[in-house]
Amino acid sequence: MQEVDRLIASRSLAEGARLPSIRQAAARFGVSKSTVVLAYDRLASEGVITPRRGAGFFVSSTNTPLRVSEVEPRVDRAVDPLWVSRQALETPGDAFRPGCGWLPAEWLPDGEIRRALRRLARTGDERLVEYGQPTGPRDLRLQLARRLSASGVGCEADQVLVTASATQAMDLVLRLLLSPGDRVLVDDPCFFNFLALLRAHRVEVIGLPMTSEGPDIAALEAALRQHQPKVYITTAGPQNPTGATLSLARAHRILKLAEQHELTIVEDDVFADFEDRPSPRLAALDGLERVIQIGSLSKTLSAAVRCGYVAVRRDWVDPLIDLTIATSYGSGRLSADLVLHVLQDPAYRRHLGTLRQRLAEARMRLGSELCEARVRLFHQPVSGMFLWGELPDDRDATAIARQALEQKVVLAPGNVFSTSQGARGYMRFNVAQCRSREDLARLRMLLGH
Amino acid sequence: MQEVDRLIASRSLAEGARLPSIRQAAARFGVSKSTVVLAYDRLASEGVITPRRGAGFFVSSTNTPLRVSEVEPRVDRAVDPLWVSRQALETPGDAFRPGCGWLPAEWLPDGEIRRALRRLARTGDERLVEYGQPTGPRDLRLQLARRLSASGVGCEADQVLVTASATQAMDLVLRLLLSPGDRVLVDDPCFFNFLALLRAHRVEVIGLPMTSEGPDIAALEAALRQHQPKVYITTAGPQNPTGATLSLARAHRILKLAEQHELTIVEDDVFADFEDRPSPRLAALDGLERVIQIGSLSKTLSAAVRCGYVAVRRDWVDPLIDLTIATSYGSGRLSADLVLHVLQDPAYRRHLGTLRQRLAEARMRLGSELCEARVRLFHQPVSGMFLWGELPDDRDATAIARQALEQKVVLAPGNVFSTSQGARGYMRFNVAQCRSREDLARLRMLLGH
Repeated sequence: MQEVDRLIASRSLAEGARLPSIRQAAARFGVSKSTVVLAYDRLASEGVITPRRGAGFFVSSTNTPLRVSEVEPRVDRAVDPLWVSRQALETPGDAFRPGCGWLPAEWLPDGEIRRALRRLARTGDERLVEYGQPTGPRDLRLQLARRLSASGVGCEADQVLVTASATQAMDLVLRLLLSPGDRVLVDDPCFFNFLALLRAHRVEVIGLPMTSEGPDIAALEAALRQHQPKVYITTAGPQNPTGATLSLARAHRILKLAEQHELTIVEDDVFADFEDRPSPRLAALDGLERVIQIGSLSKTLSAAVRCGYVAVRRDWVDPLIDLTIATSYGSGRLSADLVLHVLQDPAYRRHLGTLRQRLAEARMRLGSELCEARVRLFHQPVSGMFLWGELPDDRDATAIARQALEQKVVLAPGNVFSTSQGARGYMRFNVAQCRSREDLARLRMLLGH
Repeated sequence: MQEVDRLIASRSLAEGARLPSIRQAAARFGVSKSTVVLAYDRLASEGVITPRRGAGFFVSSTNTPLRVSEVEPRVDRAVDPLWVSRQALETPGDAFRPGCGWLPAEWLPDGEIRRALRRLARTGDERLVEYGQPTGPRDLRLQLARRLSASGVGCEADQVLVTASATQAMDLVLRLLLSPGDRVLVDDPCFFNFLALLRAHRVEVIGLPMTSEGPDIAALEAALRQHQPKVYITTAGPQNPTGATLSLARAHRILKLAEQHELTIVEDDVFADFEDRPSPRLAALDGLERVIQIGSLSKTLSAAVRCGYVAVRRDWVDPLIDLTIATSYGSGRLSADLVLHVLQDPAYRRHLGTLRQRLAEARMRLGSELCEARVRLFHQPVSGMFLWGELPDDRDATAIARQALEQKVVLAPGNVFSTSQGARGYMRFNVAQCRSREDLARLRMLLGH
């Protein structure tokens, strides 16, 4: 194949030229005839050469030069809510990413996924090639409903829709609930992609200051009176980025205010499996009346297999199915089947136990390291992978992140999380991405210590 | 597992109750201890029972009844642009679906997919668990760019973005180009999901009457003058539903008018692989200046593996990546890798050859059958899986489709494809779904002949 590619590239074989016969090529390249057959077949399926019945193979007429620019972090890009995602996803594999929002590959259950792939390869035909139910497969919905029930969110399986990701689930829900110009509440700081998504929805965003026990209730009340927002997007379990956990008392007050002001709450529960004991869920207290819960398995199972879900009250299921079909023609049956196999694998539960233990250790280690670097932690989280801290000496986190990027280090500067842009000195740290002594030393150096 | 489920359901084991020890359970259920360990482990991973270290397993406290309503076609649903999709996706597997838009499972390459799954199961760790590039993997972009070049669309791989589906690609493009209230042109009739998606975008839709050689050019010119639309969505290759193929002359006139009126064209090429010889592509003539091409592998490779793409001019790539991250946090790496493996499999090219032959035969067979049933074909397509025809005796296709649904038959009545609602007597027939004598006889009976 390489030889033919080379001959075409060097114009020794011009467009439309006939390739050597199988026999000639075997002799010329010193390989067996069956090897040539395979190579020609593959080149034909790539469109490089074209077979003509009885006449042999010919160089295709449209071999335009093809290239993919080597992807490099764009150092000049504006530090907006998409900055961390773009940099973390686009920097090469060997980059150091204390700012990214996921676990390192070696912490994730690739053995279970391999087993699930082999199991899928033995599955009945139509599951591999046909569209599935637009709701997602029945068995996975049951499994997800059981998981939700285990975290206190009593819901039945037909209130659960499988989506391609938590992000897609959120997008669908916002499409259902919002019109351009509507007002939406978020926590300040919050997961930056909420801000990027809301921008795509052309809505007005109002931030609620975060405390270590959840959003500021007085600010919530004032915002409800002043802005009449339709939706409040918040996080269950360890909040991203602060690691804060909602207190039960605060959860009650939020729900009471939501009822008074006819506010719908979208609760993002992607970090569910990071908690040893589930903290209060708004969806659990409310019973999915005015709370919608979304989640995914990207954080603990795999980010390569796209699979999320949304749990809603019954009368919103049907319009969400319509929106799913209109905008993506269904969730992926194969990914959903794969996720189901992994969730059913007892090894996966053990993986979660190990994961939580490793995270606890990593939080301790990085916490004390940051303390020595005079970073003031917002709060000491009891679960999750994030620490949120203020840099010493009034340092500008955005400037530091920009400099770090030139050394292929992806940091998460505070203001990308903040609607008020009041987190200039803050940074989010991923404890699972800073493990070795070298990592920790490098991070301290970048922070100017 | 069933035994424990039964004991819990019958309240013989109440919430919080301790399960029999491994040894007791083995004796009681007459199985080995290792079988009990496996069953308990699995029940625990499903959240039905909870392990407590050193104390055994206990019935979880939240075993609410879980149910999934058996999905049945909703006979009373309005016959709108989502009607065919909902019915075709939601009716049980044994339904007869002459109205659906995909091939039967046994026509699709499940062997190649099995091979690809096994190959994936041997892949390097991080590819199975980590996010990929938001653009999709490099090798698949190269492969897709080669396919595009083979159909005359000269583009480089970094103009190709991998998406979860053609529908998602279309959604992203519309998000980039449109604001609510904008005007958009479509063919009349056109693929009904364009209409469903455009409704989600809150834009105004104007239909162009179709001829067997593409849209009516006089109507296009008039619509451009009168409505100043921003975008025209159309189909390359065999049009859905008419099976019409754009003539070269008409393609030139469309592009000329598009240039005069600063119109962007989105060309949906999902049926690319159904053609023996590619018909004119607007994207090929235009060179991706004001034409965007989207496509997917759902029709010929698998609908269970979600993978589509969009090919655009270079300056639209970056904003599309931003939108992809904001609304879905990237395309699925695992699906993309799977698709790449299948595309590289020489058996896949042979599959396409066989497929086109089978489709040609099925078009002939159903065509003559419909002729005998006095259905007047709009035109005799030279490729693809659809026939579009007018029922005899002024029959109402919507009424027939509703009746058919009660017998678990999914038909595609004309008006779901039509912005003007001028296709009351028409129906779209999927030749691949009407194969046996019984199918054909049943179809004729439903059409009242």
